[in-house]
Amino acid sequence: MAKIKAGVLGATGAVGQRFIEGLREHPWFELTSIAASERSAGKKYSEAAKWRLESELPKDFAEMTVVNVDPKEVEADIVFSALPSDEAKRVEAEFAQAGFAVASNTATNRMVDDVPLLIPECNSEHLEIIKLQQERRGWDGYITTNPNCTTIMFALTLKPLMKFGIQGIHIASMQAVSGAGYEGVPSMAILGNVIPYISNEEEKVEIEAQKIMGTFDGQKIVYADFDVSASCHRVPVMDGHTEAVWIKMRDDPTPAEVRDAFLSFDPGLSDLPTSPKKAIIVRDEPDRPQPRLDRNRGNGMSVSVGRIRPGIRYICMGHNTIRGAAGASILNAELLVKKGFLG
Amino acid sequence: MAKIKAGVLGATGAVGQRFIEGLREHPWFELTSIAASERSAGKKYSEAAKWRLESELPKDFAEMTVVNVDPKEVEADIVFSALPSDEAKRVEAEFAQAGFAVASNTATNRMVDDVPLLIPECNSEHLEIIKLQQERRGWDGYITTNPNCTTIMFALTLKPLMKFGIQGIHIASMQAVSGAGYEGVPSMAILGNVIPYISNEEEKVEIEAQKIMGTFDGQKIVYADFDVSASCHRVPVMDGHTEAVWIKMRDDPTPAEVRDAFLSFDPGLSDLPTSPKKAIIVRDEPDRPQPRLDRNRGNGMSVSVGRIRPGIRYICMGHNTIRGAAGASILNAELLVKKGFLG
Amino acid sequence: MAKIKAGVLGATGAVGQRFIEGLREHPWFELTSIAASERSAGKKYSEAAKWRLESELPKDFAEMTVVNVDPKEVEADIVFSALPSDEAKRVEAEFAQAGFAVASNTATNRMVDDVPLLIPECNSEHLEIIKLQQERRGWDGYITTNPNCTTIMFALTLKPLMKFGIQGIHIASMQAVSGAGYEGVPSMAILGNVIPYISNEEEKVEIEAQKIMGTFDGQKIVYADFDVSASCHRVPVMDGHTEAVWIKMRDDPTPAEVRDAFLSFDPGLSDLPTSPKKAIIVRDEPDRPQPRLDRNRGNGMSVSVGRIRPGIRYICMGHNTIRGAAGASILNAELLVKKGFLG
Amino acid sequence: MAKIKAGVLGATGAVGQRFIEGLREHPWFELTSIAASERSAGKKYSEAAKWRLESELPKDFAEMTVVNVDPKEVEADIVFSALPSDEAKRVEAEFAQAGFAVASNTATNRMVDDVPLLIPECNSEHLEIIKLQQERRGWDGYITTNPNCTTIMFALTLKPLMKFGIQGIHIASMQAVSGAGYEGVPSMAILGNVIPYISNEEEKVEIEAQKIMGTFDGQKIVYADFDVSASCHRVPVMDGHTEAVWIKMRDDPTPAEVRDAFLSFDPGLSDLPTSPKKAIIVRDEPDRPQPRLDRNRGNGMSVSVGRIRPGIRYICMGHNTIRGAAGASILNAELLVKKGFLG
Repeated sequence: MAKIKAGVLGATGAVGQRFIEGLREHPWFELTSIAASERSAGKKYSEAAKWRLESELPKDFAEMTVVNVDPKEVEADIVFSALPSDEAKRVEAEFAQAGFAVASNTATNRMVDDVPLLIPECNSEHLEIIKLQQERRGWDGYITTNPNCTTIMFALTLKPLMKFGIQGIHIASMQAVSGAGYEGVPSMAILGNVIPYISNEEEKVEIEAQKIMGTFDGQKIVYADFDVSASCHRVPVMDGHTEAVWIKMRDDPTPAEVRDAFLSFDPGLSDLPTSPKKAIIVRDEPDRPQPRLDRNRGNGMSVSVGRIRPGIRYICMGHNTIRGAAGASILNAELLVKKGFLG
Repeated sequence: MAKIKAGVLGATGAVGQRFIEGLREHPWFELTSIAASERSAGKKYSEAAKWRLESELPKDFAEMTVVNVDPKEVEADIVFSALPSDEAKRVEAEFAQAGFAVASNTATNRMVDDVPLLIPECNSEHLEIIKLQQERRGWDGYITTNPNCTTIMFALTLKPLMKFGIQGIHIASMQAVSGAGYEGVPSMAILGNVIPYISNEEEKVEIEAQKIMGTFDGQKIVYADFDVSASCHRVPVMDGHTEAVWIKMRDDPTPAEVRDAFLSFDPGLSDLPTSPKKAIIVRDEPDRPQPRLDRNRGNGMSVSVGRIRPGIRYICMGHNTIRGAAGASILNAELLVKKGFLG
Repeated sequence: MAKIKAGVLGATGAVGQRFIEGLREHPWFELTSIAASERSAGKKYSEAAKWRLESELPKDFAEMTVVNVDPKEVEADIVFSALPSDEAKRVEAEFAQAGFAVASNTATNRMVDDVPLLIPECNSEHLEIIKLQQERRGWDGYITTNPNCTTIMFALTLKPLMKFGIQGIHIASMQAVSGAGYEGVPSMAILGNVIPYISNEEEKVEIEAQKIMGTFDGQKIVYADFDVSASCHRVPVMDGHTEAVWIKMRDDPTPAEVRDAFLSFDPGLSDLPTSPKKAIIVRDEPDRPQPRLDRNRGNGMSVSVGRIRPGIRYICMGHNTIRGAAGASILNAELLVKKGFLG
Repeated sequence: MAKIKAGVLGATGAVGQRFIEGLREHPWFELTSIAASERSAGKKYSEAAKWRLESELPKDFAEMTVVNVDPKEVEADIVFSALPSDEAKRVEAEFAQAGFAVASNTATNRMVDDVPLLIPECNSEHLEIIKLQQERRGWDGYITTNPNCTTIMFALTLKPLMKFGIQGIHIASMQAVSGAGYEGVPSMAILGNVIPYISNEEEKVEIEAQKIMGTFDGQKIVYADFDVSASCHRVPVMDGHTEAVWIKMRDDPTPAEVRDAFLSFDPGLSDLPTSPKKAIIVRDEPDRPQPRLDRNRGNGMSVSVGRIRPGIRYICMGHNTIRGAAGASILNAELLVKKGFLG
């Protein structure tokens, strides 16, 4: 089978580089187009982007010429979008109209009614709304989105707990600096410090999970009926968002029941290349998960859970620019292929 | 007036050094005795302790000879205890029996029925229980304690909110490494990392505030009637515990009402030398308080509060080895003087 | 005596804020004018600048209105310049021409022949060149400069060693992030990392010391005859540049002789308010100086020296935005007053 | 071919864990024995050691029972030693006498006359001295050692430069905390700080390279004739020692000649499984190598070099617990196999 052609929009930034990294030797997708701002267009990728990941930039990617973020210049079946929110609003629609599948990591379209906000392990059935999206808008292509990097960690852990009747959630996040992009957090702001505020983050965290856990009734997504109250904080960690979560549930399960629900959780996605062996890893040590030690589990796609205590309280942690961004979009794209929307 | 003689027990460690620092040029207390373990006894303090604070060790303190932690060797009216918990259990009682006032920063006696767990701004009336303590035990001296360094930050903020009818508290802490003592947290454990666990910390945090906010009925302290659910985390910060707090209150006050309660809070302790001008400082910037910028407010004795949001949610932060440890004990001692229990 | 009127140019950045801080309650200078870029002009200083120092911004400074960096808008006898290098080239000359004394922390004029590059403890006699500067250029005012923040730490330690016949210097610096300005070093670049490169830094370090240690022959400054070879590195430290220095000297002094030279060094500046009690502090502990513990000695104006070993090798360390920037300029200005060039 | 049986002495610490990690799926060696202190002996390895690496501990290793550090209890052909220096002195000789090959990462035997101090890329011919060692001491086994973790990085870069006539070396190191072992550097000591001192480090760095670069004349190793002057510093980095090096050479090569020497360096060890594709990687970017980005090159076995400037000055950097410790010993063991001393 020929590989599906993939482009990356906004390829030079922190998430863009993670997209490039995630498409190395991908069995289904082939990186055919790298698009970035005017300043970068026309340059070799290795000249346009200062590569900042610990892995090495593949030589053939380094040599590719960056094109403009324009449907006419991008040659691909699917584009992964790491564009800034304001630019994404206009551009993602243009690509969808021009027939591209758009897998977006950007916030701009997440809460739009007919756009699925996907975590394949949680709500793959929401994909069906794509058909309505295309119909209503007259698009050949379509837009799918993945959640905010803080939402996705705890939202994934909600799926196996839905059966207990989730009523309310408190969440306090300790977020890595990479979540703000390469220049996002000056070292003078965060060295030896905590910043108890991330612009617009709590707003996203408090609304996205209800859509993800909602049900698609054939016409629209009916939001799940629970409240989320978030307090978001930046800490001096490179990668990996750690979250302290309290969940109030109708059935008042014991920590052992919650642990069992996590352990037996199998979303049935083992045929997707980016899907980790375990979507949720349960750690029984008293002091895990920790971002430095656990963020790369499942190639950065597993969410690690620990310290399940009465309350129910627990800690969840995952890699914010892989599971929380580029990897999430790529997994979504793999689901699109599996469900026949692509390829 | 002659100064009151003060000794420090466990004077070489992180909190012990903060006691020494806090007694420099104290208007009421004079450091007359430095006590530490056998290994240190007999040495000059500057040889027994590797001074690790940014302030300079006063020369006359440096020259003092360390004595054993033994009532017979310590010459003082009051002793400040920074002993390890297991040793403190036996030793603090010995000192109280021998007639010393003991102001302890150690956990061991905090929850004992007839020992006051004091925050002068919150429950100075609990001091009266000292008389029962002396009577029952036949002691000439007595023991007072201050709360755990995580408890004290949010507990202080509860006082002005009690009028709204506090029903339940969620708290997620992001704690500085100095809270674990100088050798407590290896750099390999915490550099670029979060450790979502501190041994025994949540247990302390979940029970101490009810005693502090309780009422003394003449015979015993009747605990306040609210629940605390805590999740405690270590972050790569030197000093300053940051806490995300949710408080459920019967009267459901608005953020503005909570802010007003904080702003108008005046515990009437301006005559105590270590009491800060403002016990609670309200910050209106979106991203404050931050440990690096705000921990030294009020010479490390103020608790800074910010981000008061519906919920009610807010952030509070204070210096864990000053307001949360040595400074707390010294302020307690000053209250003892004011109330006639000392000097 | 009326205070001398002082303005700050480039008042909103990291060094600019240190200027503002250094002028609080200054006995000789009164802050009369705060100048910054067009974007800030017209605003209150507290609105134009996000105050990022641990000290509190004085209320009366907070209320001052920022003016443009224009001699016509600035009312002052002396201006302290923290302007970007490119802008400084034009602007500092304009101010000098308009009659202002300019005490600049910017690189642009440091190596200009008739501009003194001052460290009051090292080369106060270079001030005389100001007269030539004014004569040649027809200026009523004049420009003085202080060295680069890395140069100044080791250059200050050279003064008492000149008598041994300095022949060559190797220096490896470990520099704090504040040296690059607030947005200069992204946290993603430096957390848990070393960056072995600072743009243009080695070039400055390798030439400035020879001018500082040179002799003024009445017409020009004859550079000192030694070589400097530098390797400059950024480390995850907030403030305080640490430098490993090797000095080859004709007389081959012993470490004890070098230590004595440091200890007996007295530049005779005790009448200048910003001059520290000791310009050079000698630490005899095996592991000092350290930036976190020693950078604030002498209110940030002392350079601490330790580990004097055969070679001669030693470590020197000082506060880069105080002794290495704003404090240096203010001390220069105090010298201008003392020598009759100002006030 | 059956695999060679390998044991690890001192298996629970930071370097011991790196040995365990390095022996996972090793093509030539099979981990057959895990030895540690009395406290650990008898326990399963996963209980005796708190695994602190980002890689996962293989299940079969986790289940192995720890034995005492005693030749009678250890079943192996070769033992890798990560013992503390004082214990190593006695124990390594016991193992060698009992017929084991000992590949030691400990300092204790490095400078002993008839013990090779090996870097396979530099001085594989020194292995011959093993025969003298066995003869003189009447041992069936023998001891080999690898250099100190700071020495090894720059020593490896000396090999291709020896032809230019090395006369003297200045080196300033910026060392990672993992070099001191898990509990070696308290976070309170190093967060946001530099410690310009590492006990006994400069002494090792200043003498080891001469032995490594020396020549074996059939009877003894004649040390290379150059001086090394070191200044060693600890920085807040997890792994990776960065070193600023100045090398004075008789032939005064240009930076381009030095770069060519590095680029064309091929030690001919591509048949050793742990040998990296390139022992020395040359980086041409202005700001590399950096520990966070480059320490894992060549699976942690490559030394990265950059910023080659006149002087000659350059930066070199490598992974201190892999290339500088466990990986070095394992590479030595592979060389023993290749040269017929083992297996």
